[in-house]
Amino acid sequence: MDDSKRAVLLLSGGLDSTTVLAMAREQGFDVYALTVLYGQRHSAEISAARRVGQHFGVSDHKFADIDLRLWGGSALTDNIEVPKDGVQAGIPITYVPARNTVMLSLALAYAEAIGARDIFVGVNAVDYSGYPDCRPKFIRAFETMANLATKAGVEGAKLSIHAPIIDWTKTQIIEEGLRLGVDYALTHSCYDPSEEGRPCRACDSCRIRIGAFAELGMSDPALS
Amino acid sequence: MDDSKRAVLLLSGGLDSTTVLAMAREQGFDVYALTVLYGQRHSAEISAARRVGQHFGVSDHKFADIDLRLWGGSALTDNIEVPKDGVQAGIPITYVPARNTVMLSLALAYAEAIGARDIFVGVNAVDYSGYPDCRPKFIRAFETMANLATKAGVEGAKLSIHAPIIDWTKTQIIEEGLRLGVDYALTHSCYDPSEEGRPCRACDSCRIRIGAFAELGMSDPALS
Repeated sequence: MDDSKRAVLLLSGGLDSTTVLAMAREQGFDVYALTVLYGQRHSAEISAARRVGQHFGVSDHKFADIDLRLWGGSALTDNIEVPKDGVQAGIPITYVPARNTVMLSLALAYAEAIGARDIFVGVNAVDYSGYPDCRPKFIRAFETMANLATKAGVEGAKLSIHAPIIDWTKTQIIEEGLRLGVDYALTHSCYDPSEEGRPCRACDSCRIRIGAFAELGMSDPALS
Repeated sequence: MDDSKRAVLLLSGGLDSTTVLAMAREQGFDVYALTVLYGQRHSAEISAARRVGQHFGVSDHKFADIDLRLWGGSALTDNIEVPKDGVQAGIPITYVPARNTVMLSLALAYAEAIGARDIFVGVNAVDYSGYPDCRPKFIRAFETMANLATKAGVEGAKLSIHAPIIDWTKTQIIEEGLRLGVDYALTHSCYDPSEEGRPCRACDSCRIRIGAFAELGMSDPALS
């Protein structure tokens, strides 16, 4: 078995990570999906992650529980209202302390356990410029650290963190996904869905996504 | 409230992290302890962590569950026999993939949530030279990454990872702890304790610890 084409992918079931899954597949990787449940207030994104993983027939799909509500610090994990008055400058209160570091660390553990040298993550620095852990220099620093943290590093192999859409606009991401045949009706991005899992259309995540589809002359397939 | 003297400390309840707790205290830090339960096969070290935290009267003590058995890869999380024939060269099978990266990431999330700029960890590169994530260059790379991952980094504050015993021998660690009045009977280091939580005296961790106390002309207080 050639482990070198195994890749671990962080899959939230959102638009970004689903597009990156399609991209990793096109590059010939056997994708091992990891969905990290960090105390989300709703299960709609977990259902979406499962749906997307099944649709793409990933080689394996792990769900890791780590309750970041233990210490709180974010509207996504605490009982704080998600803002719905438009995208603001600065670090949004939906930022979860060190979330991408924790999720990438778990992806790293999974990758090392299955002999994968490649980790894919759908972080994006354009729409979420306020999140420190979505910046390219964070990803590069994580990759450097990861190569020192693991057996791969000791043995001289190179472990790569792929963040292929990090500097793309949402419109570019959707265009690439459509080229690859992604069905965006499967995905879920809303921070504050209804009990039935329907998007609120008003949080930052909904607004950015709806706007990007509109730019392409489409309506968001997740809304129909 | 002056948050600048808050520190998060990774507390396993073993000899090393307990000594580092005493050291952080001597430096005047308010210690917020974090014990990460990563699917340990026994609860003796959890009890020890709780005992040590209470003994030192830490400001808070969080227990975070993350089951690294999800993907296995170590004798400490899988159903593999812990080796008892002496310390060998190379990466031991008790190595847990990316364990220190995962634990430090959680400490980072906790630190950011409570406004702490200091993280203490009892990693040691001398006795466990085979563990890639116990090396000084790993700690430095993690610190660099951590400063890019968090609000602190964006706001220009400096986040420090303290690994004060990383290049000490076990004997030096114990000498420092004894100077600080640490009661090592509270601590637990064994990889494979009895059901009653008594150390096996034969695993690497027991051997190293017993040997160090012997060098100081003492018997290991945890054995009595």
